Amino acid sequence: MNNGTKKIGKLFGIGVGPGDSELLTLKALKILKEVDVICSPRASRDQDSTAFSIVFPLISDIVDDIDIISPVFPMKEDEKELESYWDEASNLIALKLDEGLNVAFITLGDPSIYSTFAYIHKRLKNSYEIEMIPGITSFTSCASNINEILVEKDEILIVVPKVDEKFEDFLINGDSIVLMKPSRNMKSIDKIKDKINAEVYTVKNSSKENQEIIKGFSSDKSYFMTSILKLKK
Amino acid sequence: MNNGTKKIGKLFGIGVGPGDSELLTLKALKILKEVDVICSPRASRDQDSTAFSIVFPLISDIVDDIDIISPVFPMKEDEKELESYWDEASNLIALKLDEGLNVAFITLGDPSIYSTFAYIHKRLKNSYEIEMIPGITSFTSCASNINEILVEKDEILIVVPKVDEKFEDFLINGDSIVLMKPSRNMKSIDKIKDKINAEVYTVKNSSKENQEIIKGFSSDKSYFMTSILKLKK
Repeated sequence: MNNGTKKIGKLFGIGVGPGDSELLTLKALKILKEVDVICSPRASRDQDSTAFSIVFPLISDIVDDIDIISPVFPMKEDEKELESYWDEASNLIALKLDEGLNVAFITLGDPSIYSTFAYIHKRLKNSYEIEMIPGITSFTSCASNINEILVEKDEILIVVPKVDEKFEDFLINGDSIVLMKPSRNMKSIDKIKDKINAEVYTVKNSSKENQEIIKGFSSDKSYFMTSILKLKK
Repeated sequence: MNNGTKKIGKLFGIGVGPGDSELLTLKALKILKEVDVICSPRASRDQDSTAFSIVFPLISDIVDDIDIISPVFPMKEDEKELESYWDEASNLIALKLDEGLNVAFITLGDPSIYSTFAYIHKRLKNSYEIEMIPGITSFTSCASNINEILVEKDEILIVVPKVDEKFEDFLINGDSIVLMKPSRNMKSIDKIKDKINAEVYTVKNSSKENQEIIKGFSSDKSYFMTSILKLKK
């Protein structure tokens, strides 16, 4: 008996971790194998999706049976231009959900921490059922790479994507600071260098085959870098 | 040919996530299946290890072939008394490593974030090869549970285990604050309640079958709670 109720799909925001396919959770992999559609963001039409390259080795045997969509999320600074890309991607996902299909949006690291999923979540959370699946964040992966504890006991961890006037305050009040995407902050770091009393490590391409650990900051322009500052007291 | 060099084992510090066995990574599970010894901390002689209860369903078929040791890490405040427990556990692990056995120390959440592994790491890192395997932290799991983004764009995330004079500063300079183990901070929270302009969520037993989401803080005394403050600006 068909009661006429239209089935609406469910959206999963899945964290795929920092780069190593083996850092996916069992839950993330299970859901990827069950959904109808995988949505994997990419930086431009000419580039493959980094998130998809992480999950591909794990689902290569079933990939032909899954509908894969790869909307472009360009790395631009112009907020207004970006909005139109996020709207477009959200509309594309909504169309699939309206067809009754379950969609997994895959995102680097964890969906709640500086993820591309945030922009989709904001647009669709009031209209569709969403479940977020946590992933390994870049900064805990980096801590493992450098074999260092970030915080213990009563210590304070501060995660910042930008070095501004607040940063000097954090140098006093924090115990470990994670600086996301340090390459775009090197000018500001240079200005306050003398005030930084810390062991600094920078990890490039954490958990990937081409991973590099740099003692101190790095002038490298890579997007896939994270700096960890263990402050000395 | 035996060249007389004694094989020394390797120590893995493995994050097993917040509670749901499916939140283990593929890598963590692979290593657990390969090691000779699993070391799972427990709070007292009368209690089972929480970390072990998370991994057990995944390795139940091979558990008889693995040497399992469960040193006690009591939840006490007296640092000096605790030191002796940590020393004892480290010595126990060192004995196994000296026998040439590979040991996996399993720890809730991630090994770099307020983990029991930190105390072992400190004692053994200069004498033995250690590899840390990142895990899902309680706070990204909680963010997924409440279906909220923690930080996006230039926002700042601050993770604190204690509410003290610095906390008021963080209420101004942060965007999202994670308060670990809020139960031991409720008196301090009560005192500054009027200064907290935030959406507050508390998650108890994140990702477990008995998970609870509380809007606001909770007077519950549970150890397995985390509060998330999304500050209003």
